[in-house]
Amino acid sequence: MNACVFCDLIEAGDALVADRPAAAAFLPRSPLAPGHTLVVPRRHVVDMFAAEDEDLAATMQLAREVAGALRDVAGAQGVNLLHASGEAAEQSVFHLHFHVVPRWSDDNFTTWPSGRSGRAGDAAPEHRLRRALELP
Amino acid sequence: MNACVFCDLIEAGDALVADRPAAAAFLPRSPLAPGHTLVVPRRHVVDMFAAEDEDLAATMQLAREVAGALRDVAGAQGVNLLHASGEAAEQSVFHLHFHVVPRWSDDNFTTWPSGRSGRAGDAAPEHRLRRALELP
Repeated sequence: MNACVFCDLIEAGDALVADRPAAAAFLPRSPLAPGHTLVVPRRHVVDMFAAEDEDLAATMQLAREVAGALRDVAGAQGVNLLHASGEAAEQSVFHLHFHVVPRWSDDNFTTWPSGRSGRAGDAAPEHRLRRALELP
Repeated sequence: MNACVFCDLIEAGDALVADRPAAAAFLPRSPLAPGHTLVVPRRHVVDMFAAEDEDLAATMQLAREVAGALRDVAGAQGVNLLHASGEAAEQSVFHLHFHVVPRWSDDNFTTWPSGRSGRAGDAAPEHRLRRALELP
């Protein structure tokens, strides 16, 4: 047993639908859609802020493979990727993960937020972002 | 002018908040939160299905940088990543993009879908996914 339920799942292995050197995939307990899959780095990384580029590259490579498999074997017509980093962003398991959610044009479902942030009235931090990201 | 509004934005350059060899970032017209940023590959790629691993790696590397900048200069306490591939997934601009949405614990906002897919009654395609992704 690890302190992390996703590390336990990876170690046990029997629930995985994909297993790669640096990433793995499995189905969540409460799927939003049939085939909804979680893709994670095998290494315990808490969130995007703590991730190395290699963790993200390997995880997104598998997310792309999962998306293709959902299209090819489950007949999905599209996919959404959903991700949360940080409790304030509604992250619930603190091992980096991406939700790959298959979509159909007739699924009567939306993954786009219906509301907006309560912070929406603040000044846009565009110039500070640009400077932080090294643009004049 | 390109046939793609995001290619136009990248080419013009003045609206970018980050510019990297293979990825760029800019703010959307209708932000969900102050600092909401779009991260895209510079190369025109329609969606995840069409992306090369290099496009995804470069784009996620910049998404991670943008997340860090939102935390450091905009005081975000977390971020969500939201993405759509395919019209059935509510993709509206057909140049691969990831939404990086800053979050605060008091933003009175949720990005997690409130509903579930109308396909939720179908049989789970777990064994087919596993086989497609090369697990026995």
